[in-house]
Amino acid sequence: MTRWLNEEEMRAWLGYRRMFLLLNAQVNRDLARDSGLSEPDYDVLSNLADAPDQRGRLSELAARMLWSQSRLSHHISRMEQRGLVTREDCKTDARGSVVVLTKQGQRTLEKAAPHHVESVRKHIIDQLSPDQIKALGDIAETVVGHLGDPARS
Amino acid sequence: MTRWLNEEEMRAWLGYRRMFLLLNAQVNRDLARDSGLSEPDYDVLSNLADAPDQRGRLSELAARMLWSQSRLSHHISRMEQRGLVTREDCKTDARGSVVVLTKQGQRTLEKAAPHHVESVRKHIIDQLSPDQIKALGDIAETVVGHLGDPARS
Repeated sequence: MTRWLNEEEMRAWLGYRRMFLLLNAQVNRDLARDSGLSEPDYDVLSNLADAPDQRGRLSELAARMLWSQSRLSHHISRMEQRGLVTREDCKTDARGSVVVLTKQGQRTLEKAAPHHVESVRKHIIDQLSPDQIKALGDIAETVVGHLGDPARS
Repeated sequence: MTRWLNEEEMRAWLGYRRMFLLLNAQVNRDLARDSGLSEPDYDVLSNLADAPDQRGRLSELAARMLWSQSRLSHHISRMEQRGLVTREDCKTDARGSVVVLTKQGQRTLEKAAPHHVESVRKHIIDQLSPDQIKALGDIAETVVGHLGDPARS
């Protein structure tokens, strides 16, 4: 027998979906306007900036973003043309192409980050109380823990 | 001066993004496996099922989904070919193409819904306490209220 969602559950589920759709659109619009970056551009740049030696395997980046390697490879090629990253072949593993943040990529990220934080603050973080921020962190931790994060396995 | 996110805020923001990415992928995989439907298929069917006379303007559906009308029009054409919806021209407004749920579309949704609810329960709702469900609903209401929902204006 189907356990349909009750009113509170439906409100949470549909509200969460609606929040994501609208918030994602707004934050991505801000990012494009302020910095000329797309969401995957920003993801790639910030992932590389946080990595040791500012580099990472394309396969691991793709797993983290839940993208196919071929899709990410095309995207990385376009970012290479813009001077944001470079690609190095891995000497020990032919499959292991490595993506490296360039100086220009780093500068682009450094210029984009303050605007991006401001957008995130304006549209979600500063709208919420400290209790709500704590609750959202806990909810996310629970759900991500249940699903299992391929980037950590 | 940039007000960077503190530790709790960063945990909430990055956790929320990660939760969405992983949860969306899982729920969409379940939906495709159980019912052969994509997420936009399901959105269109359930929006029409909830509408008066099980029909709605393509322009309003597109606004609700934040899709361009031409993108949704192509998607609707593919759903028409599968017998899930039909399209009627609006007599009073040439721009107002209307999308109508078919009997088969309704049956498809009715068969899909219990599986979809089970997937949503398994991967998020049943992972959360009643307090967390309430908190998530409140958070979403606040953020959607701040952003303004084009579907309600």
